[in-house]
Amino acid sequence: MPVYSVSHVENVRICVIMVGLPARGKSLIAQKIVRYLLWLSIKSKCFNVGSYRRLLTLREDTTFDFFDPENEAGLKVRQEAVNQAVKDMMKWFAEENGVVGILDATNSTRNRRSQLLKLCRENLIEPIFLELWCDDKDLILQNIADVKTTSPDYVDLDSEYATNDFLGRIKQYEKYYETMDLAADADLTFIKLVNVTSQIIVNRIESYLELRIVYYVMNLHIKPRSIWLSRHGESQYNLTGQIGGDLDLSERGWRYAKKLPELVLKSLGEEHKHTNLTVWTSTLKRTQQTASFLPYQKKLEWKALDELDAGECDGMTYEEIETEFPDDFKARDDNKYEYRYRGGESYRDIVIRLEPIIMELERQENILIITHQAVLRCLYAYFMNVPQEESPWMLIPLHTLIKLEPRAYLTLVLRIKADIPAVSTYKEKGTSQLGEGSVNEGSVKSRDLISNSAT
Amino acid sequence: MPVYSVSHVENVRICVIMVGLPARGKSLIAQKIVRYLLWLSIKSKCFNVGSYRRLLTLREDTTFDFFDPENEAGLKVRQEAVNQAVKDMMKWFAEENGVVGILDATNSTRNRRSQLLKLCRENLIEPIFLELWCDDKDLILQNIADVKTTSPDYVDLDSEYATNDFLGRIKQYEKYYETMDLAADADLTFIKLVNVTSQIIVNRIESYLELRIVYYVMNLHIKPRSIWLSRHGESQYNLTGQIGGDLDLSERGWRYAKKLPELVLKSLGEEHKHTNLTVWTSTLKRTQQTASFLPYQKKLEWKALDELDAGECDGMTYEEIETEFPDDFKARDDNKYEYRYRGGESYRDIVIRLEPIIMELERQENILIITHQAVLRCLYAYFMNVPQEESPWMLIPLHTLIKLEPRAYLTLVLRIKADIPAVSTYKEKGTSQLGEGSVNEGSVKSRDLISNSAT
Repeated sequence: MPVYSVSHVENVRICVIMVGLPARGKSLIAQKIVRYLLWLSIKSKCFNVGSYRRLLTLREDTTFDFFDPENEAGLKVRQEAVNQAVKDMMKWFAEENGVVGILDATNSTRNRRSQLLKLCRENLIEPIFLELWCDDKDLILQNIADVKTTSPDYVDLDSEYATNDFLGRIKQYEKYYETMDLAADADLTFIKLVNVTSQIIVNRIESYLELRIVYYVMNLHIKPRSIWLSRHGESQYNLTGQIGGDLDLSERGWRYAKKLPELVLKSLGEEHKHTNLTVWTSTLKRTQQTASFLPYQKKLEWKALDELDAGECDGMTYEEIETEFPDDFKARDDNKYEYRYRGGESYRDIVIRLEPIIMELERQENILIITHQAVLRCLYAYFMNVPQEESPWMLIPLHTLIKLEPRAYLTLVLRIKADIPAVSTYKEKGTSQLGEGSVNEGSVKSRDLISNSAT
Repeated sequence: MPVYSVSHVENVRICVIMVGLPARGKSLIAQKIVRYLLWLSIKSKCFNVGSYRRLLTLREDTTFDFFDPENEAGLKVRQEAVNQAVKDMMKWFAEENGVVGILDATNSTRNRRSQLLKLCRENLIEPIFLELWCDDKDLILQNIADVKTTSPDYVDLDSEYATNDFLGRIKQYEKYYETMDLAADADLTFIKLVNVTSQIIVNRIESYLELRIVYYVMNLHIKPRSIWLSRHGESQYNLTGQIGGDLDLSERGWRYAKKLPELVLKSLGEEHKHTNLTVWTSTLKRTQQTASFLPYQKKLEWKALDELDAGECDGMTYEEIETEFPDDFKARDDNKYEYRYRGGESYRDIVIRLEPIIMELERQENILIITHQAVLRCLYAYFMNVPQEESPWMLIPLHTLIKLEPRAYLTLVLRIKADIPAVSTYKEKGTSQLGEGSVNEGSVKSRDLISNSAT
């Protein structure tokens, strides 16, 4: 019997067809959806038509007039780019068992959309249109600023030139853009977001997975904010190498707790030092003790942030587990993401119970989370798009504050180490020994900036 | 630090103002929302204007022409009913710390709605309009049939007379009904459901709690279905009076597992014997063994259906807990819903982890759930509206199949006892002794039909 998870999808295959003028945030939303679904073990991929078009053209040939609907050469190239993207997507569905494919393009006309619709239906794929509609000028200018600095079409070009060219390109699309409409598109499955989530129109959403996507999108906002992550300070069990339990901080752990307010201030910088954070902890003493010197009024305790439940192994050291349950010890090393402790949890179980936390985090602004090694790995994996086979092995040392700053197409990461020693709780594959506190952080750091190209 | 739960609401107070013609399912949805929120410990109440109107009038004076907008006497009484309902609601917000009040009435005109809006704003209550719009004749006739048999306006009256009078009443409302509109009502927070959830329009939803309500409503469907609940068969630990663990069934437990397919068939009746159920179990062996003889192909395993985690008390008998942790034992008896086992869970914790299960159950059709005593109590409490102080004390014996059949305004309950003896796992307050297997079921049975009056 397979373990149920949020990823349970009953052979459904969905194609999310993005709809919207340039600079409406299509790529941003498409990439967020992919990241969220991958984190839930739902095989997803974004197919960006702009990237295909760039392979067929030179940058100097694609100034705004290239996008004129009267420009026949341009039209031909753009049609070819769509064809190739769609072909690759269909191949991915068929050969790689894709579940949610996202076609990231303007798909501006009913004619284009009905072609895609037909193609999906022929291939037994559920089409769902996701339109981003926006008439808020500030929002559009903000999106243009993001695209300018990240799109291969404009990177390294003069800023004013890029803005003007991009505005010219938008004008070309506006000539023939047809918005989704409850009357004209009554038979289609679609979501239309007006000015981010200020109005939402949902038509004929039926399957579980479609509704998950809709709900996720409804929770997004675009206000700038940061998320801080920290493990609790060193605990009594950390000192003895035992896992689990609900023990107090060690003397050095208390020192970290007292230092934490200063680290947070440092991460905020002088200009933002009065920013008000909300603090989330688990229900375990060591996270609450770590939070106890923080000057913020709003502190919330979540059971869902409790450490991975080690079941029968709770309170044991890795050496003891290796001796007492050698098969389990090996099984966990072989597939740490899926391995569930006897009477306890797996990393996959944690992801399922963290899902409402992620949803709430997307809604909130500045949150500081003090939690545990395995939970923090799963949260970090969500924000930084770390694959499942790597996330349980990530190095997240004690006495280190991590600040994540999600931007349009990348997440900035700042790590501040407190100058307070702590044991290492990092166990490498194939050994029951813990590290010496200075394990190579290379593989983590290389992921610290995730970036993706826009249209 | 208070324990975070889904019920966390940051001093928000919300008034859900229902909008819709008669027979659109307003009362049904209003009552479901209240039940869901109460289950999540969010203080909620429905104020049904029809009930207030009935206190002011005689039934024989309220035939359809009473609702004619030209009938001044009728108008006056109906305005008075609204006034009284709103007054009581405001009193409830102010004096009883209400969080979500629902005003269940047609609220057919912009004029009426703007009066309510003004009143809410004056009282610092967030107004959210929930319109049920429907032009599907079959759906309307089905709703009329429900109202006819349950509304005090029609109960015991001739069926044809009731239908005609009610259709007449709807016509009166149609004369001046104004639907919610994205243009005309652009400044209001509203949800409009068109033909149940076939189209959904969401305008200016901002707060967490508002979005929870929207998401819940989006998951509802009205197809007829049943839900079956059973505990696992008697387990080895049941025999020794120990709690928790992951042990096999006892010999009698296996007999129950073999009998279960027959009980399910019996509950389906001859006519529906080919109904295809989906079986959900926990990840623990005793529930999967109990499911193992069921002939249904789709069986899913949910970690969220695992038994309440007794933490340090896992594997102990109640006597042992009373001896070893006397203060905890007493604390649990004093407030069983809130008491969290050392390193384990409380009933409240279970409700939080069951919330996605409830959402999924609302979406699904025929589901048979095989789970554990505490989890089953929480699920049952949701469907049957059992208050928190009672739910942890409910009698849910072993070797008994429960079938719940949600109807418009009540849930039918069928309990089928297998003729296979089992120990009692029922512990009464103030003792560590388990019952003898034939505890008084009175207090449970009296709740077995929940019904509410419609408009």
